[in-house]
Amino acid sequence: MTEYFGYAAGVLTVVSFLPQVIRTWRTKQTDDLSFGMFALLVTAGGLWITYGVMSSDWPVIGTNVGTVALNCAILTAKLRYS
Amino acid sequence: MTEYFGYAAGVLTVVSFLPQVIRTWRTKQTDDLSFGMFALLVTAGGLWITYGVMSSDWPVIGTNVGTVALNCAILTAKLRYS
Repeated sequence: MTEYFGYAAGVLTVVSFLPQVIRTWRTKQTDDLSFGMFALLVTAGGLWITYGVMSSDWPVIGTNVGTVALNCAILTAKLRYS
Repeated sequence: MTEYFGYAAGVLTVVSFLPQVIRTWRTKQTDDLSFGMFALLVTAGGLWITYGVMSSDWPVIGTNVGTVALNCAILTAKLRYS
């Protein structure tokens, strides 16, 4: 039961970055995006994956693998278009 | 030991939203920000807090209380300035 909340939270967290990824890659406008935010989110995601592996917490592991990938996509757009 | 990674990840996650909050409130420019992203992050944060409480995971609880507050600040700016 507890795990379901974790997976629901994880899916929603990963999905939440999709509108920003899509918007950014479509508009190629990144001026209002903070590079620092997304760089820190990638670093934090790496730490969460470590924490998830150490505590065998699969919702945490899965979520952060997904968000690190999407945040890298946003960072790439920021570097390319700004 | 495991908890330290969780707290480090949590602090970094919360801190990562600060540059965006500061940038958004200072520039009052929110056109490039996705409303959907931040609305979903607030919803996901609520689910993570539920998951954290059910599994007594303090790093998860603390992190998401922080991110929900900051994402609400970004959402408020988006609604006010766009």
